[in-house]
Amino acid sequence: MTDQPAEFTDILARLADTLESRLPQNGGDPNASYTAKLLAKGPDAFLKKIGEEATELVMAAKDNAPDRIVYETADLWFHCLVALAHYNLRPEDVLRELARREGVSGLVEKATRTP
Amino acid sequence: MTDQPAEFTDILARLADTLESRLPQNGGDPNASYTAKLLAKGPDAFLKKIGEEATELVMAAKDNAPDRIVYETADLWFHCLVALAHYNLRPEDVLRELARREGVSGLVEKATRTP
Amino acid sequence: MTDQPAEFTDILARLADTLESRLPQNGGDPNASYTAKLLAKGPDAFLKKIGEEATELVMAAKDNAPDRIVYETADLWFHCLVALAHYNLRPEDVLRELARREGVSGLVEKATRTP
Amino acid sequence: MTDQPAEFTDILARLADTLESRLPQNGGDPNASYTAKLLAKGPDAFLKKIGEEATELVMAAKDNAPDRIVYETADLWFHCLVALAHYNLRPEDVLRELARREGVSGLVEKATRTP
Repeated sequence: MTDQPAEFTDILARLADTLESRLPQNGGDPNASYTAKLLAKGPDAFLKKIGEEATELVMAAKDNAPDRIVYETADLWFHCLVALAHYNLRPEDVLRELARREGVSGLVEKATRTP
Repeated sequence: MTDQPAEFTDILARLADTLESRLPQNGGDPNASYTAKLLAKGPDAFLKKIGEEATELVMAAKDNAPDRIVYETADLWFHCLVALAHYNLRPEDVLRELARREGVSGLVEKATRTP
Repeated sequence: MTDQPAEFTDILARLADTLESRLPQNGGDPNASYTAKLLAKGPDAFLKKIGEEATELVMAAKDNAPDRIVYETADLWFHCLVALAHYNLRPEDVLRELARREGVSGLVEKATRTP
Repeated sequence: MTDQPAEFTDILARLADTLESRLPQNGGDPNASYTAKLLAKGPDAFLKKIGEEATELVMAAKDNAPDRIVYETADLWFHCLVALAHYNLRPEDVLRELARREGVSGLVEKATRTP
């Protein structure tokens, strides 16, 4: 496994923190940021983007275009993070679910039991 | 920001390692694992799942069902990881792209410059 | 424009009639037909198929495969008809909306005004 | 079955004729019409719309909103017709496939054998 610095792997958590600050109830300004605007519009606006970005990822993959695959996956995950923020959920909830399923969860479950 | 142990945040990288070992060219056995089977079938099999899981996430969100939102996002991200593995890409590529966009990239870029 | 017999163009209406007869409230037997089963399961079952078939159509198109494009479009439209049946709507409602938009609606509007 | 005038049911064929005239090779002017523009951009532009409109249909259905279900189905079918035009296919090909599957094809097959 690639050894990677904590700063790198924490990007999802940091993005989630930023997105939370853009929620209308947290003072997000729809005129100041794309995500504040998207969150202010409500679920249909960002859920539609999830369908759209999923399709764009599929097309990039069919074109066998690595850069676009990375770009569109980032777009898709980003809009998932926007949705999670709206529903008061965290990317860590998703990562925990992934860990739980894959049976790679030994260390993870130990970690989540730690206060 | 939530402080989280490195073991937790590394789940995407560990999953990617596992998925790589399930690739046909790495000896993945289609009869022994769901993902080896999916990877052996080729792109259309897992790309179709991306469209399907995106729709399921949208429906869970419309139902305002937190557990299902987490579950379906995990499903969606998992099948994205399967696609990334097929195209010899890593979740770290996606995280780096997310970091680059969000201007939270100071520490990250420093980290990725480190050998 | 291709001249076509009425029997041919009425296929959507005939399919809709069949689907209506498969609704649970009309005695559709989930054990006797695929669509009765799908309708009995409720919206998420057939809406998920719409997302799935849309993705399959996109993939067939990216492969430039005419037969599969036709096949997947038929799959997609079919599951749209299933959804319309569930919501007590008709394909004619969709055709009327298409006609209204395209400004080809002269004859159509005349026709729909006729009792 | 609803009895309907031929003018009404021919809408798909008429739309297909219009879309064909908007193809770049048939002199469609990207500056003069939405569909000529979409067709000039190439497959990814309209295929992306298929993914997007499918998601919007799913959301309208989850909201149990009949008018929006009709509207979004029309949007979805319209962009399918755009795709069919690009690949030199006709809605009649899709209707024929639907007829073939459903065993309601007696009259239809007779009709399609007629010159």
